[in-house]
Amino acid sequence: MSLLVVGTTALDSIKTPYAENPRLLGGSASHAAIAASFFTKTHLVGAVGDDFPRKYINLYRKHGLCLEGLEQLSGQTFHWSGEYEVNMNNRRTLDTVLGVIESYSPTLNASNAKLPYVLLANIAPDVQGRVLDQMSRAKFIVADTMDLWLNIARDPLLKLLKRIDCLVLNDSEAAQLVEEDNVIAAIPRIHKLGPKYVIVKKGEHGSILSSPKGLFIAPAYPLKKVIDPTGAGDSFVGGLMGYLASSKGGLEKNLRASIVQGSVTASFCCEGFGLQKTTRIKKSDITKRVRELTRMVAW
Amino acid sequence: MSLLVVGTTALDSIKTPYAENPRLLGGSASHAAIAASFFTKTHLVGAVGDDFPRKYINLYRKHGLCLEGLEQLSGQTFHWSGEYEVNMNNRRTLDTVLGVIESYSPTLNASNAKLPYVLLANIAPDVQGRVLDQMSRAKFIVADTMDLWLNIARDPLLKLLKRIDCLVLNDSEAAQLVEEDNVIAAIPRIHKLGPKYVIVKKGEHGSILSSPKGLFIAPAYPLKKVIDPTGAGDSFVGGLMGYLASSKGGLEKNLRASIVQGSVTASFCCEGFGLQKTTRIKKSDITKRVRELTRMVAW
Repeated sequence: MSLLVVGTTALDSIKTPYAENPRLLGGSASHAAIAASFFTKTHLVGAVGDDFPRKYINLYRKHGLCLEGLEQLSGQTFHWSGEYEVNMNNRRTLDTVLGVIESYSPTLNASNAKLPYVLLANIAPDVQGRVLDQMSRAKFIVADTMDLWLNIARDPLLKLLKRIDCLVLNDSEAAQLVEEDNVIAAIPRIHKLGPKYVIVKKGEHGSILSSPKGLFIAPAYPLKKVIDPTGAGDSFVGGLMGYLASSKGGLEKNLRASIVQGSVTASFCCEGFGLQKTTRIKKSDITKRVRELTRMVAW
Repeated sequence: MSLLVVGTTALDSIKTPYAENPRLLGGSASHAAIAASFFTKTHLVGAVGDDFPRKYINLYRKHGLCLEGLEQLSGQTFHWSGEYEVNMNNRRTLDTVLGVIESYSPTLNASNAKLPYVLLANIAPDVQGRVLDQMSRAKFIVADTMDLWLNIARDPLLKLLKRIDCLVLNDSEAAQLVEEDNVIAAIPRIHKLGPKYVIVKKGEHGSILSSPKGLFIAPAYPLKKVIDPTGAGDSFVGGLMGYLASSKGGLEKNLRASIVQGSVTASFCCEGFGLQKTTRIKKSDITKRVRELTRMVAW
């Protein structure tokens, strides 16, 4: 079945100890929708400015994304500049230009409003909420978030949590959300805020799904070298939702398999700047790594 | 088959944000041998002073440990005092009294020298080496170590690495040993130093085995509350070696299963001060958690 992805469509200027890359294609919706496109028909909802390069539109098209929900507005495209430290774990924002997304409020067309799978990729919680207001037949709704919204939009985020099926966040965000450092102790408190399913991302250490059937501990695909982790979390949840939307059968079983597929999709994201590696792989590359990973966890 | 465990036998005074516990039974060999005793006949090799409480000898006996290799020397028992921070991840040594282990050089009796499985639990690498000098029929030798020896006894440690089958160390020690922050990139460099098998412990994030057949990514049993992580690494490698010594069949398959058993054994260690929880469980408690963990990783 088809998937709607809403989030930021951005230009990212990324500095790492190894290189500097200006104005790459970035944003949560770009990463998530391209990751999802390996598995299912994906509809992108977002806004770019009049400086958004045509080559990036072509890249979206190459991945078969439906762009009816991509608005081109007058002004600058959202632009993030950041820098990673040597170990690639700590990142520092150098500059943020909100541009057209500052006042962006998505309007869905009739076909987008009827899509069954909904990924509210990382963007302001009230924008995520306004998309939900318009969805009429949603079957499974996942929201991603980030520390920024916990700091400046906690109330809209708490309201959103009551309307979604699954929340995806990383371990430090989980700790911040419910003020509990132990992830396993934090999870039941997050469920109390609304979502029936909670997925905590732990980067290179994998992720944890908590569902009514208990915990699923998922590995990350081991990488010898991380070039640029920007967008890895978005690729993870994008791959996850793409695979889930394409799956038949029980939700619990499908969610577990989807997390592994999302995790492997994210591993490719880390191996290039921005979307450079992800946009050069084939679905068979993902399948091959999933097979390897399956062997790596068997005992 | 039987297992020899050499390491420290100590008294630990442990402060955490929750409580303070003086003169608990501790030391790498105590934790490792008691963990191993759930699975196989375990022979303890170590030295205590004349202040070592009889109740701790009785505790060793209760777990069926062979104590022929435990020497009672004139002087103080090795005593470590430490303090954990709120998140239980950072620990600070408050005081160390080496006592009788300062000049300890183990002498094995004839039956200990012939044991097939050898665990060189954390102690000075030259002491670990002197034990190996006396072993005549070792089938599988595992060594554990710690950052202290990387700092003050690097050369003896490097010599030891050429004589063992498997090195166990944590992620920060792996990074320090070969000056490489990425664990996956560090592992091949550790193999080059000698050991055919390398196990990197990542605490709550599980562990990674690297063998000639590739990587095995092992989960940790998820805990809602950690009371005291002291000795968890020793319990891990102790449970691992105990289970391995008790297993029949292929080494690779057995090692993977042993890591899971060791990981679960270590989870109990974290749930009490010192050995308080570990010494109160039964083998069936370990088996139950292994079964749970198996369900938690299936997809």
